[in-house]
Amino acid sequence: MIDRKLILVADAVLTMDDANSVLHDGAVLVEGGRIAAIGPAAELSAANPGVETRVLRNAVLMPGLVNAHVHSGFLRGTAEHLPVWDWLTQHINPMHRVLQPHEAEAASWLCYAESLLSGTTTVVDMWRFMDGSAKAASSIGNRLVAVPYVGEHPDYNYFDTLDMNQAIIESWHRKADGRINVWVGLEHPFYSDDAGHRRAIEMSKRYKTGFHTHCSEARIEVDGFVQRYGTRPMFVLDDIGFFDTPITMIAHGVWLDPDEIRLIAGKRVSVAHNPVSNMKLASGIANVREMLDAGVPVSIGTDGEKENNNFDMFEEMKVASLLGKLRYDAVQPLDSWEVLRMGTVLGARAIGLDHEIGSLEPGKRADIIAMRTNTPRMTPFFSEGPYFNLHHNIVHAVRGSDVALTMVDGKIVVDDGVLLTADLQEIIAEVHRVAPGLFARRAAFLAANGGDMVQWTTGSPA
Amino acid sequence: MIDRKLILVADAVLTMDDANSVLHDGAVLVEGGRIAAIGPAAELSAANPGVETRVLRNAVLMPGLVNAHVHSGFLRGTAEHLPVWDWLTQHINPMHRVLQPHEAEAASWLCYAESLLSGTTTVVDMWRFMDGSAKAASSIGNRLVAVPYVGEHPDYNYFDTLDMNQAIIESWHRKADGRINVWVGLEHPFYSDDAGHRRAIEMSKRYKTGFHTHCSEARIEVDGFVQRYGTRPMFVLDDIGFFDTPITMIAHGVWLDPDEIRLIAGKRVSVAHNPVSNMKLASGIANVREMLDAGVPVSIGTDGEKENNNFDMFEEMKVASLLGKLRYDAVQPLDSWEVLRMGTVLGARAIGLDHEIGSLEPGKRADIIAMRTNTPRMTPFFSEGPYFNLHHNIVHAVRGSDVALTMVDGKIVVDDGVLLTADLQEIIAEVHRVAPGLFARRAAFLAANGGDMVQWTTGSPA
Repeated sequence: MIDRKLILVADAVLTMDDANSVLHDGAVLVEGGRIAAIGPAAELSAANPGVETRVLRNAVLMPGLVNAHVHSGFLRGTAEHLPVWDWLTQHINPMHRVLQPHEAEAASWLCYAESLLSGTTTVVDMWRFMDGSAKAASSIGNRLVAVPYVGEHPDYNYFDTLDMNQAIIESWHRKADGRINVWVGLEHPFYSDDAGHRRAIEMSKRYKTGFHTHCSEARIEVDGFVQRYGTRPMFVLDDIGFFDTPITMIAHGVWLDPDEIRLIAGKRVSVAHNPVSNMKLASGIANVREMLDAGVPVSIGTDGEKENNNFDMFEEMKVASLLGKLRYDAVQPLDSWEVLRMGTVLGARAIGLDHEIGSLEPGKRADIIAMRTNTPRMTPFFSEGPYFNLHHNIVHAVRGSDVALTMVDGKIVVDDGVLLTADLQEIIAEVHRVAPGLFARRAAFLAANGGDMVQWTTGSPA
Repeated sequence: MIDRKLILVADAVLTMDDANSVLHDGAVLVEGGRIAAIGPAAELSAANPGVETRVLRNAVLMPGLVNAHVHSGFLRGTAEHLPVWDWLTQHINPMHRVLQPHEAEAASWLCYAESLLSGTTTVVDMWRFMDGSAKAASSIGNRLVAVPYVGEHPDYNYFDTLDMNQAIIESWHRKADGRINVWVGLEHPFYSDDAGHRRAIEMSKRYKTGFHTHCSEARIEVDGFVQRYGTRPMFVLDDIGFFDTPITMIAHGVWLDPDEIRLIAGKRVSVAHNPVSNMKLASGIANVREMLDAGVPVSIGTDGEKENNNFDMFEEMKVASLLGKLRYDAVQPLDSWEVLRMGTVLGARAIGLDHEIGSLEPGKRADIIAMRTNTPRMTPFFSEGPYFNLHHNIVHAVRGSDVALTMVDGKIVVDDGVLLTADLQEIIAEVHRVAPGLFARRAAFLAANGGDMVQWTTGSPA
């Protein structure tokens, strides 16, 4: 944590407060890792004489983005355009089978570096051997919700276990000045037996932390739930007790029907919407409008490097807007303000951190990014008046590479587009050093096992 | 044109030739604005001693992208999420009514600068007062297919006219060392009377140039054609004689049915696919797979700054891939190679320039870009072997900001991400100088005219 005071001044400050307020010639006073004050630059400077001031010209300050569903990894571009079954059984599952901790850690360094460089300050990462991920986040400086990829079932014993999850909670939950939270994770409800379900719920309650799982991503899953349990997925999760945890975030939720949406809107349940992944894997289009209208906190996630294939939340917000328009056959459904809120303060609410992050307001953590405005993509730029287009430009025109500065917890971690907290080229080189070993072990495993691994079907419950 | 010889060396050369060949440690010899040779770096250097050599490390060379449908403009982000009728009648049409040539030229400078910086070397721009656009392209260095936005009908007299189109052809067609081509344009077939249709076709034939119009973008248009002419749009255009021109490129073509696709596949007709715009305006999803299978050259376009809102062809290729997967409810439909070909050599074919551009092959114009590979988005990067992912990374992970160098006609116009041929900040400043005047005149026009302008309905043919 940084204790010194610092004033950031920019042409405009997009606060994402309840009124979506924008300040012109605005400034943010940062102190002790938190936002101490926000106001007109002249006023804030006059009230804080002698405080170090960083003037960002041709820039807008806004909250760092919350990427609500990611998997670290480095399969990027190596398993594309494949039917989901082949993709899972020939590439993804055998990768998990042979993955080693040092490889998992290299993937997290890469993921968090890309995230910070593109303006994402909070990463919800469902990944493996997350001691390494927590070390990476602790060092590189992002805020992390670490969610171990758990399989608690003999048929899915190639993921982390709940024992490993508990150990990571005990080591890392609320560490690194509170930048790191550890949740209870499950790859999918089918990847655990009943005892595992009960233990996951109990762990989440005992440690007062969240629970995160994939659910209702593919249409076929709904049939699987109905066959195993006689009802649709959200009712099953509620019956099992998952919705009594402090917070449950469902990744995808593409196939939630009106009854399920009504159910979760009354519970402590949020949804991580992954529009690029849902298109790329031909999963379908989530009913985001209905979920938002019902009051469900819908966040936005990029999903993994193998499903997207980048972690640019600006691109993801744009695709969320586009997909909403296509889904509802109309141009209004997801307004730029709503999409921006999903990427910031609503994303924070979806992970139970909106009291700390997601908007630029006094008392919150100083997770702040500066976006360049003197680019063709931002031109013309009107930060006030009848042609005000800042929110539309951010959602539809700019991208992560327009991020000039990233601050997390009051510490500047990216400046002028350069990562300050780690050697980016070394992070990339490390992935290239370790990747061949992972691929070689996977190939050897596949050669010894007939070329694939089985995956859950819609059989009877474990 | 640059006459001196230059060898570009990079880690890999993605040629986009018929075999999608990739050379490792490859080099391109450029001479007289054309590609003189391509081969292994060591061989090419040995065969050309003393020739200036530019070694690009951590970079891949590939053909510059072809953006097949753009409108210059600077309404970016000022008219969003509006029903199409309100958008057209309250924002777009009145803008055209009051637009002045110096404003149109400022918009083209901005568009072409953004294009070159993001790796697009050829821009098919349907815009107004294109003498200014041609001057901009001539100076800034992009390849341009200038297509005047023509309305040749008393109800649509707020666009360019065929007289203006003819004048631009006579001034600029095949000028600037051949970098500039001028086509015959029409906003939409309904925006011209029968005499205008005949004259447009005659002009296109006489000047041996292409014809470009919007068609079958919105479902409602099909009804309009059936009501006016008794049959679907492509059959109407064929009956009128448009398909006897040297080449006709249809922008959008979202609603082409199997009969129309079969018809145009046998004609000199191509389609510019605009996936982001089609999503953003809720137009629908084009049958790209069927068009490609039938042999229709399908190119990719970003559409205008008001429909997208940027000109990043890498983003557009990604969305083309994603939308194809969503459309066909399967992950295979548009392979990365096919999408890359649509953005390069098939795009060139769609505008009748594949003998000159679109791939890196000896004899073609030296329109070449270098993409950075030492970025998180490109990691891991395998340019050979079983995990070869260059094509997937380019389509799904990278973006225009990863372009390090852009060369058009053998001249380097962007180097290390910096535009060399013009002052980017001055281009942006000029837009900000002229935009308020355009907005003010539009507001005055609207105030004096009841707040909107009528737009074509499905009435009787003119």
